[in-house]
Amino acid sequence: MTAALNAAREGFRGANPLVGAAILTDDGQIVTGHHRGAGTPHAEVDAITTAHDLDIDLSASTLFVTLEPCSHYGRTGPCTEAIRSAGIPSVVFAAPDPNPLAAGGGEILAEAGLTVRSGLHRADSRALNARWVSAMSEGRPFVTVKIAQSLDGAVAAADGTSQWITSAQSRAHAHEIRSRVDAILVGTGTALADDPRLNAREADGTALPNQPRPVVLGDTELPAESFLALNPDILRLRTHDIGEALDRLHEEKVRHLLVEGGPRILAAFFAAGVVDEVFCYQAPLLIGPGRRSIEGLNIGTLSEALRLVPDDTEVPALSTLGPDFLLHFATETTPPGSAPPVSESTGAGSTGSGSTVSGPPGP
Amino acid sequence: MTAALNAAREGFRGANPLVGAAILTDDGQIVTGHHRGAGTPHAEVDAITTAHDLDIDLSASTLFVTLEPCSHYGRTGPCTEAIRSAGIPSVVFAAPDPNPLAAGGGEILAEAGLTVRSGLHRADSRALNARWVSAMSEGRPFVTVKIAQSLDGAVAAADGTSQWITSAQSRAHAHEIRSRVDAILVGTGTALADDPRLNAREADGTALPNQPRPVVLGDTELPAESFLALNPDILRLRTHDIGEALDRLHEEKVRHLLVEGGPRILAAFFAAGVVDEVFCYQAPLLIGPGRRSIEGLNIGTLSEALRLVPDDTEVPALSTLGPDFLLHFATETTPPGSAPPVSESTGAGSTGSGSTVSGPPGP
Repeated sequence: MTAALNAAREGFRGANPLVGAAILTDDGQIVTGHHRGAGTPHAEVDAITTAHDLDIDLSASTLFVTLEPCSHYGRTGPCTEAIRSAGIPSVVFAAPDPNPLAAGGGEILAEAGLTVRSGLHRADSRALNARWVSAMSEGRPFVTVKIAQSLDGAVAAADGTSQWITSAQSRAHAHEIRSRVDAILVGTGTALADDPRLNAREADGTALPNQPRPVVLGDTELPAESFLALNPDILRLRTHDIGEALDRLHEEKVRHLLVEGGPRILAAFFAAGVVDEVFCYQAPLLIGPGRRSIEGLNIGTLSEALRLVPDDTEVPALSTLGPDFLLHFATETTPPGSAPPVSESTGAGSTGSGSTVSGPPGP
Repeated sequence: MTAALNAAREGFRGANPLVGAAILTDDGQIVTGHHRGAGTPHAEVDAITTAHDLDIDLSASTLFVTLEPCSHYGRTGPCTEAIRSAGIPSVVFAAPDPNPLAAGGGEILAEAGLTVRSGLHRADSRALNARWVSAMSEGRPFVTVKIAQSLDGAVAAADGTSQWITSAQSRAHAHEIRSRVDAILVGTGTALADDPRLNAREADGTALPNQPRPVVLGDTELPAESFLALNPDILRLRTHDIGEALDRLHEEKVRHLLVEGGPRILAAFFAAGVVDEVFCYQAPLLIGPGRRSIEGLNIGTLSEALRLVPDDTEVPALSTLGPDFLLHFATETTPPGSAPPVSESTGAGSTGSGSTVSGPPGP
């Protein structure tokens, strides 16, 4: 399971959790796999494919996976099917799938005659995906916030000029992040000020393969000829309530949301406690007066400050992009007392020892 | 000379330039040395000491040094003396010493019968110490600015609370920087608000060996019982003119000044174009309204923004201090057209080939 956890860390968090798999054969070989993001094979399938490519016999192997194998047809087929057709007789998973649409895979495999156990390193798997699990169980998208600011925290100069504060390398990175999410949200202020396209482009302007859905929060009408008004895919959320907006996005099957601004929208998401991840592009500029990157946070004293957590689980917490710095943060997870309930259909503890969910069905 | 330049980079810039030395013996051995900061042996002496420790014969060696050997008694004896008593017959230096008090060492050595050449890798030596050379030739201290801010650029919350935004590790690092400078400057606003001691302390409160001189800029009187008012060493600069303040500090033999705030003082130093180096401690906090780290920069549009340059010459441009990030910047050097004149008594070009300043005196 340690190999599976390590494999999981090679993935990229987003609409999907970090999941890793390791297949242990009866002669001691280990083949690992991990999930590489939305629309790509799940970790189990990744490992099985590698094993097949290497002509490894799986008929007496055990599959260790950090998350319960899925049982549904999403963008990929159900992993339960892939495991059965690979002839793997034994499966151990660390944590149950909190996604109600995908859960129950363990039971399906057990009913099919496989030996299924769960709970091994459950806490580690949970920690890896704490924010993702929390977003899923709250029935809302995983929320990534992008901040692109000067060293003195500005996103525009006094006269409103803001193109470009960050480097070409930073902007290219930001477009790559865009291509990994389901939707990008801005407020009407940003939509009016910048007339953004909110699509994911290469440096030369060509569209990246995965395009996010543009979302505009707020009531104000957009000019009919603006890029966003002309985009048939646009989702208008005519509300200022972040909870209501997230409910709508969840209904629209948005699992990973990127919030790009403006400053008051960012503050509203932070204040609502629904930010899971922050990419902060920091340009080595002093811009002086002008708009702050986050405006309207109702914080009166230092002890009320919001604390972010430098996060290098999948990407470095700290990197350079040309002359800019990129800082990557998670947010503090909800304290245990106030944690939203997480579905615990399999009652195994979070200790290191596995516990049987259900063996093969009786005769 | 490349070995000498590499040795120079191991030093720590401050009141003194980065200087490295390499001694090449007639049998091809190379011994290097570098300057480790104010009050410690110069690079030449460092290399000579190492050579002596290793019992290396210097009687037919050549000393390469990135800066002209000094000729004066400062905190250490003149290097010209050390070189002569070591019996080194030949010296090559990259760049002349811009400090008028210390210059002329090359001529002294030549008069004493040594072979002296200069100009080899002069441009590289200059680049290494561009900001230091510029400060020296402007007759002002080398200016380091410290910024300690939240991710959203605040140095205090709305109610003025500011202790502590940065981590204990960041504060320890800041005290280490304090112990390397000649003086620390704050404005009267900070002096009144924080009643700072402006000394350099260990985490347990004990004083570090080198103590900077506290400097307060501005007219307002300080309470008689404040730490700064009680410090007999204090220097009051009753002006708001940064140029005038730097002139006074230069007269007072302050060669390395650390500017700690507040926000308007930082802006005034940046606006005056006299900031050479920036340490920015960035805490992973969002503080919302409250004082900005830099206030009063008169910048109207993005193209007027001040551009800093990530600098990893001696320390990493980017590092972590507990939960905080430390960013290290230089500032853009003055464009060539408006560069202040640098003393060029030896007319050698900045090419890679050495040029004879003066040989041994004639018979």
